[in-house]
Amino acid sequence: PFFRREERFLVLMADHLLEPELLSSFLDFLKEEEKGEAQAFLAIDRRLQAVYQLEEATKVWVDDEGIIRVLGKGIRDFNGVDCGCFCFSPAVLSELAGEVEQGWGNLSQALSPVITRRGLRAFQIGDCFWLDVDEPADLEVAKKKLLSRLVSPRDGVVARYFNRPLSLRLTSVLVPLPLKPNFYSVVNGLMCLAASVLFALGFGLMGGVLAQTASIIDGVDGEVARLKFQETSFGAYFDSIIDRYSDAFLIGGMAAGLISAQGGQLTVLFPAFLALAASPLSMLSKEKLKNLTGKEYYPQEEGWLSYLPVNRDGRLAIIALGGIFNLGFIALWFLAIMANLQVIYRLIKARGILNS
Amino acid sequence: PFFRREERFLVLMADHLLEPELLSSFLDFLKEEEKGEAQAFLAIDRRLQAVYQLEEATKVWVDDEGIIRVLGKGIRDFNGVDCGCFCFSPAVLSELAGEVEQGWGNLSQALSPVITRRGLRAFQIGDCFWLDVDEPADLEVAKKKLLSRLVSPRDGVVARYFNRPLSLRLTSVLVPLPLKPNFYSVVNGLMCLAASVLFALGFGLMGGVLAQTASIIDGVDGEVARLKFQETSFGAYFDSIIDRYSDAFLIGGMAAGLISAQGGQLTVLFPAFLALAASPLSMLSKEKLKNLTGKEYYPQEEGWLSYLPVNRDGRLAIIALGGIFNLGFIALWFLAIMANLQVIYRLIKARGILNS
Repeated sequence: PFFRREERFLVLMADHLLEPELLSSFLDFLKEEEKGEAQAFLAIDRRLQAVYQLEEATKVWVDDEGIIRVLGKGIRDFNGVDCGCFCFSPAVLSELAGEVEQGWGNLSQALSPVITRRGLRAFQIGDCFWLDVDEPADLEVAKKKLLSRLVSPRDGVVARYFNRPLSLRLTSVLVPLPLKPNFYSVVNGLMCLAASVLFALGFGLMGGVLAQTASIIDGVDGEVARLKFQETSFGAYFDSIIDRYSDAFLIGGMAAGLISAQGGQLTVLFPAFLALAASPLSMLSKEKLKNLTGKEYYPQEEGWLSYLPVNRDGRLAIIALGGIFNLGFIALWFLAIMANLQVIYRLIKARGILNS
Repeated sequence: PFFRREERFLVLMADHLLEPELLSSFLDFLKEEEKGEAQAFLAIDRRLQAVYQLEEATKVWVDDEGIIRVLGKGIRDFNGVDCGCFCFSPAVLSELAGEVEQGWGNLSQALSPVITRRGLRAFQIGDCFWLDVDEPADLEVAKKKLLSRLVSPRDGVVARYFNRPLSLRLTSVLVPLPLKPNFYSVVNGLMCLAASVLFALGFGLMGGVLAQTASIIDGVDGEVARLKFQETSFGAYFDSIIDRYSDAFLIGGMAAGLISAQGGQLTVLFPAFLALAASPLSMLSKEKLKNLTGKEYYPQEEGWLSYLPVNRDGRLAIIALGGIFNLGFIALWFLAIMANLQVIYRLIKARGILNS
């Protein structure tokens, strides 16, 4: 047997997609209910407007005490939808076994005498994601829904409107491959290194296109990680280190290329060093603030600054455009100004946050 | 009146130095004791070996229940020392007032009938710092003790054996000035900027001496802040941003000076960019790890790495020596290797910490 006789057990529909948070909060709920009288539980979704193919779903009527009184596909009065995620006690199992022997064909039908006798305790899943995948068409919907969940509210302007739509397509193609998210972080870093060599050798157009492609790939590692539930703390750490090196390579390569092109004139070193000094402070200031306040810092709440290309997506776009249009000197100055503007903005903001 | 009739109140000796943590943990203790029967409390130190001028101190005998049964300067049997930090209820105040009217000259004497009647509840201060300052000679001891408390266990090798002893002397001279800790952070940054200009113009010796002096000043902001109890989160944030810029200035200035000296040869840009890429990652990796694990990261626990000049004190010393001995090219390569070695070390360590 796959469960111990005396223990409660979960019954999950094999064709339902559930996000792990749904299950873990269901388990927390069950833990709290452990000493209660209820013997049967069902996770339900009350966001009726948002349920995909509501007509196909199994509906429920939950009373004011949180007990499901009616369950079925065709019921008229309902205020929730069955997410395909049950918990039963061994006592309920024997009852269900009895019903099945008497000829009830499926779980919903076999449950109805149990519901009449005992009621079924409802667990509301809140904002969690789930999806019933029945038809081949549903599979496409499932893919789209999972991909759309990958867009981060922290995305900068370039990421949101240019990189993310492209990286999502790339991710949907790459995700079946048996490659870890960190692999894409490394690919991203190597592409930036290659782009910086191209810049240094004077191939600005190729370097620029490669740098922007790397910026798109930069989204893939996180997307694959979230899609495959392979997000790890080390992955986040590794990615952030690779990104800092990539920034430095690109600025260094662009500066070296410009010095060569201008016959050894060194004025370009000034914006290059200013840009290189400020770029890592973008992330450093966020992390430091998070540590000092104990709260997440949201770049999307930075007012007018969040419309400027100051985050990594924006910085890479400046470098890429500088290479493509042979405007490296202007790009480095623009980058230096943007990156340092962000540092000053956050310094002032940090003063307000930390002194209050 | 300076207190409300119905409330308990603290009595502190005006000539005792107490660290704020001593008072705050005493207050926590009093909060817990609020519903108890005790009406009088005294903070005591049981580290008898460590008490300064034990013969002058007021001693106590604490019984197994934590009640002080005897208190006085000349008592023979004692197991604790009075830290000059009492809490009384209004009832005890009236009793004390009565004793004083009957002619008892000081608090210790006036307390003895109270102790006989009620006992005095002891609060053990643990590792907290306090000092009774009576004579002019004690003032010097107080200064030394306060200064010695400023040495950070996080100090790198150069900081511990070279910078810190000098910065402590400097701090003891500067601390009476009405200047905020952030002022010294700015001075440190400006000195690094000046040193980098000197490097760029070819004055390596002067630049090197100035850079190392800045490294010493870098300790003063934190020391003054801790000494004056003016430590702020914003101060820590501000200092860390200034330090990152200072590093970048120095590396950039040194690289520019070398390129000029070598008639425009650009090979030095390679170690300069590698050093500049890795330097901010020293701090970034610590902050990121702290955020991901929720725990402090201790560079002093990095084994063999903690003996190498990889932290800021070490990096500045490399730059300073490179300038002073006209070995900038070697210094930049050494710096690049050290800084990147640290990044790789922490990457491997982070993998172990975060995957476990």
